[in-house]
Amino acid sequence: MIDNKGLLIVISGPSAVGKGTICKELFKRNIENLELSISATTRNPRPNEINGVNYHFIDKESFGKMVEHGEFLEYAQVYDNYYGTPKKYVIDKINQGKDVILEIDIQGAKQVRQNYKDGIFIFIMPPSFKELKSRIMKRGTEAQKDIDKRMKCAYEEIEQAKYYNYIVINDDLHNAVEKIYCIIKAEKCRLSRYHIDLSEFKEEL
Amino acid sequence: MIDNKGLLIVISGPSAVGKGTICKELFKRNIENLELSISATTRNPRPNEINGVNYHFIDKESFGKMVEHGEFLEYAQVYDNYYGTPKKYVIDKINQGKDVILEIDIQGAKQVRQNYKDGIFIFIMPPSFKELKSRIMKRGTEAQKDIDKRMKCAYEEIEQAKYYNYIVINDDLHNAVEKIYCIIKAEKCRLSRYHIDLSEFKEEL
Repeated sequence: MIDNKGLLIVISGPSAVGKGTICKELFKRNIENLELSISATTRNPRPNEINGVNYHFIDKESFGKMVEHGEFLEYAQVYDNYYGTPKKYVIDKINQGKDVILEIDIQGAKQVRQNYKDGIFIFIMPPSFKELKSRIMKRGTEAQKDIDKRMKCAYEEIEQAKYYNYIVINDDLHNAVEKIYCIIKAEKCRLSRYHIDLSEFKEEL
Repeated sequence: MIDNKGLLIVISGPSAVGKGTICKELFKRNIENLELSISATTRNPRPNEINGVNYHFIDKESFGKMVEHGEFLEYAQVYDNYYGTPKKYVIDKINQGKDVILEIDIQGAKQVRQNYKDGIFIFIMPPSFKELKSRIMKRGTEAQKDIDKRMKCAYEEIEQAKYYNYIVINDDLHNAVEKIYCIIKAEKCRLSRYHIDLSEFKEEL
């Protein structure tokens, strides 16, 4: 009676909001059938990185062809390298009944929204702008000019929250992780995931 | 930023599916701000029943006037007495930020759907028709004719599942309760419950 397809869960939010930490904690819970999406990248693997585990390492030519053929849910250039989420990899997992988590920045999430309408989009919100600023400052000894620039960028990113399905305020790590766990569990109970077939019941009448 | 209004959560399903047991277990979890709706009834209180705790005990004349003035979310006649959910009682709780659980039969849920569109409607589904039949039979030494009648009624009730927001299969009590807990928690994170007001952020830029 239930749809055996998995869910695509997109976790996004402004930079420094803590989405990486939240995802790490979420996976510590060993939730059945939950997997983290693996990105493709053109950068060279670091000594301890394994192809297909940390990233799908591919060369620039292959990446370019995949872009051309629309084979990414989203992609971006960061300095000299490209990063992207291969559509086929994610869709295969979902068809196998896996729920796939995509932890991604706001720009990437926007592309996914256009390419995969059935995704569940969760926006991680800072408890306050002040708190976000302090988190950005803690991350490095950035110049005031850079901090101002990042805060302006965060403001524009938070404006995008209205396109998401859920808002999770990251005021407390445990709380935020619990909410995401619940969102996934609840989404699996939604009516749209069931094909209510009464014929099996009818037979027993 | 968050909407402080509570939710109305309607838990329904065919008779003998176990919705009462699920609700009892749910309340054992002591979830913050969660309350069970209290029905009004025209029947006499039993010795250990307290007005405003077990039921709101009211006389038939008052009940009739409330029906006339549309003051029930739902009501029904059971033999010689009337039972109903007073709208004002529920709305007041919701405005105080309480999440109200209404455990109710399919007919009642249908009335609530017409009177309170923002409700969250959860349908408790038996794992199979066979299982439901065995539960109905366990409840009493009913005649075969009555069992057949109740099964036919259950079939018609299950057809109503398509009007609900969520389906929870009661294959395991702990599991079913966990799912309802998650649905409530997730619904509180839905975008529609937030008024994203960026002015407080703007000031800090």
